[in-house]
Amino acid sequence: MKTVYWQEGVLYLLDQTALPGTVRYQACREAEEVAQAIRDLVVRGAPLIGVTAAYGVALAAWGFDGPEPDFDRRMQEVFDLLASTRPTAVNLFWALNRMKKVYTEHRAQGREQVAVALLQEAEEMFAEDVATNQAMGDFGEKLFAPRVTLLTVCNAGSLATCGYGTALGVIRSCHREGKLAMVYACETRPVLQGARLTVWELCQDGIPVTLITDNMAGTLMQQSKVDGVVVGADRIAANGDTANKIGTYMLAVLAHYHGLPFYVAAPMSTVDFSLSSGKEIPIENRDPDEVRKVMGTPITVPDVPVFNPAFDVTPNRLISGIITEKGVALPPFDSSLAALRG
Amino acid sequence: MKTVYWQEGVLYLLDQTALPGTVRYQACREAEEVAQAIRDLVVRGAPLIGVTAAYGVALAAWGFDGPEPDFDRRMQEVFDLLASTRPTAVNLFWALNRMKKVYTEHRAQGREQVAVALLQEAEEMFAEDVATNQAMGDFGEKLFAPRVTLLTVCNAGSLATCGYGTALGVIRSCHREGKLAMVYACETRPVLQGARLTVWELCQDGIPVTLITDNMAGTLMQQSKVDGVVVGADRIAANGDTANKIGTYMLAVLAHYHGLPFYVAAPMSTVDFSLSSGKEIPIENRDPDEVRKVMGTPITVPDVPVFNPAFDVTPNRLISGIITEKGVALPPFDSSLAALRG
Repeated sequence: MKTVYWQEGVLYLLDQTALPGTVRYQACREAEEVAQAIRDLVVRGAPLIGVTAAYGVALAAWGFDGPEPDFDRRMQEVFDLLASTRPTAVNLFWALNRMKKVYTEHRAQGREQVAVALLQEAEEMFAEDVATNQAMGDFGEKLFAPRVTLLTVCNAGSLATCGYGTALGVIRSCHREGKLAMVYACETRPVLQGARLTVWELCQDGIPVTLITDNMAGTLMQQSKVDGVVVGADRIAANGDTANKIGTYMLAVLAHYHGLPFYVAAPMSTVDFSLSSGKEIPIENRDPDEVRKVMGTPITVPDVPVFNPAFDVTPNRLISGIITEKGVALPPFDSSLAALRG
Repeated sequence: MKTVYWQEGVLYLLDQTALPGTVRYQACREAEEVAQAIRDLVVRGAPLIGVTAAYGVALAAWGFDGPEPDFDRRMQEVFDLLASTRPTAVNLFWALNRMKKVYTEHRAQGREQVAVALLQEAEEMFAEDVATNQAMGDFGEKLFAPRVTLLTVCNAGSLATCGYGTALGVIRSCHREGKLAMVYACETRPVLQGARLTVWELCQDGIPVTLITDNMAGTLMQQSKVDGVVVGADRIAANGDTANKIGTYMLAVLAHYHGLPFYVAAPMSTVDFSLSSGKEIPIENRDPDEVRKVMGTPITVPDVPVFNPAFDVTPNRLISGIITEKGVALPPFDSSLAALRG
């Protein structure tokens, strides 16, 4: 099941807000619809946000029917619009930069050529992402012994990417090698990506999964029910500090306390070498109603103040390794990540 | 607002499953209805479960209209039924033992006298509980400096007791002394006692509260937004190991990692001196659908396996102090709790 695909000038997005109850695609004909879909979490997951935004750029070029002089202005507007959708996942900016480069390189050949080149680049990013995740999965799998039980948070799976997944890619490779005993999935409030997406995705593939509420993770570790933690990432600073879904930091502290390994799985495009530490990563605060409601149902006093950061930052000292498509970076990450970058 | 009250042979229970959306009382005329209400979390919270069960015993004696030879059998059945409702909170067994003693002492005086004595004992326990919580609050308040920000989990408030609360009693006393800057309330999945009950109760009293999802607690501490943690308890072993709502253990580990104090507030009736450690505390596993749904709405694949322990056990080494109505027990708890018991 593709998370995003292009067909005859229309971009189709698997609507992840409706999963697992309903499987439906949202058809986008304008970049504005793509931007809104990213904001509304119709698509989410750092790698998928990047590729979706890339398709959004292609869509704008493809669908442009105004006068020639307006084209550059419109394309700049679309780049800016897509860049403004979500602040934390660096893959968004990485993908837009790649698209801007293609745009600049092909602009002189005329609008039609640019549109073709932009779509080709987006399709290439899509294919690259799947290959990247498979490579990552295979590097990550080697870190674990047979009969391993892993804990994960949010959805860093095929639904967060163009296929196979990052953290769930590692889990898929473990499963393929017959090593995986069980995955425990944190439900991941407020938006429940663990309960709604990770559980659904793993069930679809016949991978054994048990659902927990987020506050059960400590007890699982206390009772020696998990051997390690694998999570995705939205942005990794040059020193290895990692922004990921809220609740990740808590798992890292718990893993540290219980002497369990804590791995981050992410493509090199998630590493932001321009940031020396996680302190510089912008963290998105989302609508308080995400906390005050669950799937639309109010759970508390309507106007109670809420703290709702979408991400947290796990410091490098709590991370055992960062699994990428180039290999596994080990501490100290400053040098190991730079070496993988080459 | 009373959590439980007796009026003309009927026991009224504030239905906590309907809060905060609806304020309604459930009228119980039979002990069986009281037992079911305890199982269904219509009433919950260790101290309140105890007092409610005590009223349930009184209700059975009061309402008995069978032949005299059946009375003892019926009362034994009711004691057993109420004892079977929930396994972890020791206050239930403590309260039933007190009622059994009164029953035995007054049995010879006839059924009517027994019924009167049992009701009197239940009413006395109710009044004692409020006084106990006020004393506890006042001992606890002295532990904190002005402008304190505290984190709590579940609802250890007036709704978990006969009034004032245990952990929230400490918070109330801090507020009364003008010391309290903010309470952060963990929403407390799966049953959301934090979002539904603690937020509502504190808002009613004008005590400043901010709601978080359970997985945000680590980030709050990382950002130095809280000065300490105060929680209630369902059973405390003689060595201080404490069973409380799932997620408590996680908060204790996080507090330890961040160098923050972690306090338990509970009446002496929550201390089970017959258990030398928390390993012996029975932990209730509840219906998997509590995790698979939120307030009735499915959030995941319908039949996914679930881990749903209602409580966890925090080892004594992670606890800074146990606040009781007799004073604050400090480590080592074996001796300090025994000394408070006197």
